[in-house]
Amino acid sequence: MSTNPAKKIINDPLKCADELFDGLVLAYDGKARRVGKRSIVMNDLRPDAPALLVGGGSGHEPIYHGLIGKGMADGAAVGEIFAAPPPDIVLEATQAVNRGKGVLYLYGNYAGDVMNFDIGAELAAEEGIEVKTVIIADDVASAPPAEKNKRRGVAGLVPITKLAGAAAMTVDSLDELVRIAQKAVDMTRSVGVSTKPGSIPATGQPTFELADDVIGLGMGIHGEKGVGLIPMCTADELAPKMLDILFGDDLPLNDGDEIVFFVNSLGSTHMMELLILLRSARPILDKRGIKVHQTIVDNIVTCQEMAGVSFSVTKLDAELKKLWDLPCQSAGYTKL
Amino acid sequence: MSTNPAKKIINDPLKCADELFDGLVLAYDGKARRVGKRSIVMNDLRPDAPALLVGGGSGHEPIYHGLIGKGMADGAAVGEIFAAPPPDIVLEATQAVNRGKGVLYLYGNYAGDVMNFDIGAELAAEEGIEVKTVIIADDVASAPPAEKNKRRGVAGLVPITKLAGAAAMTVDSLDELVRIAQKAVDMTRSVGVSTKPGSIPATGQPTFELADDVIGLGMGIHGEKGVGLIPMCTADELAPKMLDILFGDDLPLNDGDEIVFFVNSLGSTHMMELLILLRSARPILDKRGIKVHQTIVDNIVTCQEMAGVSFSVTKLDAELKKLWDLPCQSAGYTKL
Repeated sequence: MSTNPAKKIINDPLKCADELFDGLVLAYDGKARRVGKRSIVMNDLRPDAPALLVGGGSGHEPIYHGLIGKGMADGAAVGEIFAAPPPDIVLEATQAVNRGKGVLYLYGNYAGDVMNFDIGAELAAEEGIEVKTVIIADDVASAPPAEKNKRRGVAGLVPITKLAGAAAMTVDSLDELVRIAQKAVDMTRSVGVSTKPGSIPATGQPTFELADDVIGLGMGIHGEKGVGLIPMCTADELAPKMLDILFGDDLPLNDGDEIVFFVNSLGSTHMMELLILLRSARPILDKRGIKVHQTIVDNIVTCQEMAGVSFSVTKLDAELKKLWDLPCQSAGYTKL
Repeated sequence: MSTNPAKKIINDPLKCADELFDGLVLAYDGKARRVGKRSIVMNDLRPDAPALLVGGGSGHEPIYHGLIGKGMADGAAVGEIFAAPPPDIVLEATQAVNRGKGVLYLYGNYAGDVMNFDIGAELAAEEGIEVKTVIIADDVASAPPAEKNKRRGVAGLVPITKLAGAAAMTVDSLDELVRIAQKAVDMTRSVGVSTKPGSIPATGQPTFELADDVIGLGMGIHGEKGVGLIPMCTADELAPKMLDILFGDDLPLNDGDEIVFFVNSLGSTHMMELLILLRSARPILDKRGIKVHQTIVDNIVTCQEMAGVSFSVTKLDAELKKLWDLPCQSAGYTKL
């Protein structure tokens, strides 16, 4: 296992994506099936309904492919470790989820994903399948509000996919699904911090470098540059810094607003720490008059055993709140 | 932060248990409340019903206290980091969950927990509250079948608490609740392996020592000795070794049996690895004719950012299967 200094429990380091995919299909206990090379699709889909397709690279489990399920996405196109799904996989997934009402592609804003999903959409169009796209770009630390198209998609994709999945259960047209998914994106903001890198499955080497005494404020899930490095600090010091970045963005968050508040571990950061950070953050939200309709504390958007956390806020209007309250079940997120 | 070389996002390293507890109460969004020093209790409890109380040390989140919820436990008595809840906390939790039909204590077999819950039961008896106890001892690697009373409670506590929680929703007497919880314990077996230690919140030091080239087979969640050390190996090599230990125990697992199969990360082991291990394990279960009724792949029973995994098997008879299929919701485990 000389290629596995990170001591991962794997087989061939170059076959991780295919093998975790096999495991994921098994984890759905017959409720989902493998399609083609590396797509996973739910079996019981609502007839004559627009479809919701997600996807992205592997190695961030349970996202993206673990967000398929009842009240969540209908299927996922699955890429190699940290790589977008190629167009043929996007196409096979598109064909499998389509029920004659078109397909919404909902995925994070990374260049490789945009390119491959766009080509997939062209291939689907050639087969007469209507495709529309909503891109998730919730990471406020990755670009200023004026350059939103440059923002990365991070943990906000969980509440966004949940809301779009609830919409996909209820609406009749692709345009309606697009409208609601876009609204969920528009109402969602995230900020992350990193304390330690994960490791690359193929080599066991760290995914990025970070000194022992600093935190990467606004750092992306692959170690992409954020706001900057700050000295290692306490939860009570960190939470207001993270919330200030969210409050400083262009989504108004004021007295009386209702939100979903998602505290996400990027991998190895323990739930103990997430809960301590939640304790630090909630009084700040309360003081601002923001009402938390639902709290999520979990590790759903990860990068291997990377350490760090993110806060995501999704503001709920009456329509989104009703959709939020519908039950959902998936490998990554389930609620009654 | 010289006392925090593990770079945990915390405040005072000696206040982690109290602070994560505060966060956990917040995470329940008003559905649970703080009781006394450090107990958490659900608000809407079924009237005139026997109560289910769980508990144990902190630092293993989302267990134990994150397993309260609808169709799960009614409340939890919460200890310091890696320490049992003291009797006064057990008593305050007991008083809060009791609805005149008595209280079942359901917890893992650790000397400190047994002592403190037993004293708590005596204190409750003095107040006229009937208490019965079912001890979880699912770790087959910790003692041979003839010495089951020496076995530790590990990840099997998740399916066991889910089944007991479903029973608590439906039965009318404490004796019935005891009978079903004991059956769930009798039908559950677990085995774990460790690859890396977590770190102690108060010091940042490793929870145990383990060489880089070995796996602790059967090792407990605090690094307790198991079957022994084996060379670092692949998922395909490890899965049969773990399953052989389960099959070698005294719970018959044969053709036609239905089980819940729970692949648990002990903390930092990534879901990618859990899924690859599931892929390795399932053909072995299939070949034996064992039918997996439900697969769970998650990190629910953890020890800080310790690396390692466990397999838990719960055999379902008709009664347990019916209880399993009821929905449940908690911070640690939710199903529709």
